[in-house]
Amino acid sequence: MNAVNDLQATLDPSRKSWVESANDPASDFPIQNLPFGIFSERQNDARRVGVAIGDMIVDLAALQAAGLLSTPAQGVFARDALNDFIALGRDAWRSVRIQLSQLLARDAAKLRDDAALRAKTLVRQADARLHLPVQIPGYTDFYSSKEHATNVGSMFRDPKNALLPNWSEMPIGYNGRASSVVVSGTPVRRPNGQLKLPDQERPVFGACRKLDIELETGFIIGGGNALGEPIACGDAEAHIFGMVLLNDWSARDIQQWEYVPLGPFNAKTFATTISPWVVTLDALEPFRVAQPVQEPQPLAYLRHDGEHAFDIHLEVTLRAQHAREASTITRTNFKHMYWTMAQQLAHHTVSGCNTRVGDLMGSGTISGPTDDSYGSLLELTWNGKKPLALKEGGTRAFIEDGDELTLVGWCQGDGYRVGFGACTGEILPARG
Amino acid sequence: MNAVNDLQATLDPSRKSWVESANDPASDFPIQNLPFGIFSERQNDARRVGVAIGDMIVDLAALQAAGLLSTPAQGVFARDALNDFIALGRDAWRSVRIQLSQLLARDAAKLRDDAALRAKTLVRQADARLHLPVQIPGYTDFYSSKEHATNVGSMFRDPKNALLPNWSEMPIGYNGRASSVVVSGTPVRRPNGQLKLPDQERPVFGACRKLDIELETGFIIGGGNALGEPIACGDAEAHIFGMVLLNDWSARDIQQWEYVPLGPFNAKTFATTISPWVVTLDALEPFRVAQPVQEPQPLAYLRHDGEHAFDIHLEVTLRAQHAREASTITRTNFKHMYWTMAQQLAHHTVSGCNTRVGDLMGSGTISGPTDDSYGSLLELTWNGKKPLALKEGGTRAFIEDGDELTLVGWCQGDGYRVGFGACTGEILPARG
Repeated sequence: MNAVNDLQATLDPSRKSWVESANDPASDFPIQNLPFGIFSERQNDARRVGVAIGDMIVDLAALQAAGLLSTPAQGVFARDALNDFIALGRDAWRSVRIQLSQLLARDAAKLRDDAALRAKTLVRQADARLHLPVQIPGYTDFYSSKEHATNVGSMFRDPKNALLPNWSEMPIGYNGRASSVVVSGTPVRRPNGQLKLPDQERPVFGACRKLDIELETGFIIGGGNALGEPIACGDAEAHIFGMVLLNDWSARDIQQWEYVPLGPFNAKTFATTISPWVVTLDALEPFRVAQPVQEPQPLAYLRHDGEHAFDIHLEVTLRAQHAREASTITRTNFKHMYWTMAQQLAHHTVSGCNTRVGDLMGSGTISGPTDDSYGSLLELTWNGKKPLALKEGGTRAFIEDGDELTLVGWCQGDGYRVGFGACTGEILPARG
Repeated sequence: MNAVNDLQATLDPSRKSWVESANDPASDFPIQNLPFGIFSERQNDARRVGVAIGDMIVDLAALQAAGLLSTPAQGVFARDALNDFIALGRDAWRSVRIQLSQLLARDAAKLRDDAALRAKTLVRQADARLHLPVQIPGYTDFYSSKEHATNVGSMFRDPKNALLPNWSEMPIGYNGRASSVVVSGTPVRRPNGQLKLPDQERPVFGACRKLDIELETGFIIGGGNALGEPIACGDAEAHIFGMVLLNDWSARDIQQWEYVPLGPFNAKTFATTISPWVVTLDALEPFRVAQPVQEPQPLAYLRHDGEHAFDIHLEVTLRAQHAREASTITRTNFKHMYWTMAQQLAHHTVSGCNTRVGDLMGSGTISGPTDDSYGSLLELTWNGKKPLALKEGGTRAFIEDGDELTLVGWCQGDGYRVGFGACTGEILPARG
């Protein structure tokens, strides 16, 4: 056997695990997934690296301490962020993936049949707390859904020329605020800020009235580049460790007043939520599909051969305070994105800009072609004009206090899904 | 004596040092300054915290090891960034300032008369290499010069309505790219990118043709705030450790094509240069002056009593490759800035956005009221239409390869100046 075959075997749809919950076709975390995160427990509050399998977490620090997991450097799993592990490089990520897949496979007796070892190295997800998976040196957000850019342009600029001329030539992006990226489950406080009301000459200060989600994915840089040394489009995917779901919370009223000419700032800096499990690009490999046709053909530095989109089904639910059930407010797919992650990274670095391990790059709002597949309430309700009906009654134009918004996503395999888990946040009232 | 009197004494214009070079009225680093930085030497390449005095550096790690400097936590000076020291808090910064001022004062014999101790704790600046002073978790750039915003608005939008309506209501800012902030002296490679030429329908890829400086200062966060807990305008200065000079290199042609609607990105991410010495807000205290009158009166969260501008004289020189002499291309002053640092920080956090120790906040281009006091070539040459004449012949519309651009700045005291040292960078040709 060689490494390529071993890696291929980790993707075998027929492989099952002795962790039986992982074999549930509706589990986000089958043995084909093996996403990385940071967790702690009540009994052991030290943060460390874990991998999700079914409803359990494999404690990689404990596994390595038990001599069951080898890496080029020891100790990278007894950390409060994935960065040191990621910095070991792609061969190390793949080696760990292969080792875990072999250890957790149904016919592998080593851990399966050793109750004491299992007790030391497996933790129930229900008993664990999940933390921000990476220390994020930089956060960049793109704007790469043609449908989203067209919708926003139609609403706020000119419906006849909704798409600005530069949009079709480059993956438009901007620098986000890394400090306020939080992990799923962190409550989000409604921001205060300047609001320009149509009937008043000057802005007023107050709580955002048009609080919104942006349904996005994000990718995590696994191998950075030095200042002045761009990453070629064809090499870009090798620099990506994996993906998360990302909710780019947005205060539409603050944004509309502040964003000209330097872009969104306070409208976005109060919180960005990501899912706790980083799904590796290796795990997503079977779900690679062709990206949309790009017309005009991009400039040379943005060209790549082959398929660079990924078929990831995405949904958002809204649960009002005290409601029992959540309402699904949109269903869409990552494969609709016009610009690929590889193109985003090539564009980001073409100026010479350096990236670092752990950098987070948001896709931009992912809107599909139909009006029930948009990635924001702004679009779904057309700036509040067409409120959405909720399952248990009531409507929503924008988010209300106490609402819990949850992003989920998965790739559908044959009898299994490679999922991301939930990316959720409940809105707290603004500071008085 | 109490701490307030001791701190006041560090500002006494008559205080002299036994480091005689510090008493030169043209020195940037008299005993009244005592700025903090990170340095190493050829003989000892470990990076550590130093304080500039005249043409020397006091090695704080060595000073503490020799028992001459006390701090609440040991070891914070044997570091490759100031962050751990800064995180000790304002009382610790002030205590170190007071101890250094007393130790370096002309009549203090302890170090002055101990040649062996001096050899261990003092390094010539000429023998040292200076490094990025802080590890920068986040970089934000503001746009707070009314003259600059008016000039840019006149050139690219509407001369009759040059200032956008939101500009007078808030310190407009955007997130910058922290990864590419470099220390003075680092060569800067001309970026490649998309250029939209007026005679062509589609953009072309190539080297920036309108490379520019932006003359700015930056402030370093000394005490951050938790997510969701804004910093009040009246408290904001207590969160600032100190200031640096900042050159926000800008590719005007890339910027013009990319910046709508999400702001500048590749036009700015290739490099931002800062000066190596952080001048503390305490050292700047004697140079506090009134900010410009703000009309309309800002919203309540942006109001502060008292004087919050600082009288810092600023200059930029350009030295062409192989030229002996540099030409001064602008002279201006930080006191012209419309929005204060306190207002910038209050606005930045009013949404709930958190800041962290070491965060860098750029002032925005500092342009004075006259056309020889603008802070960018874009304005000085009016987008290249009025090239500047250089001292040794030749002209400049924008920066050419091999040009070395240098920012300097100082506060003029009575017989001394509190200076920033140089913030310099030479332009290398674009990657082929």
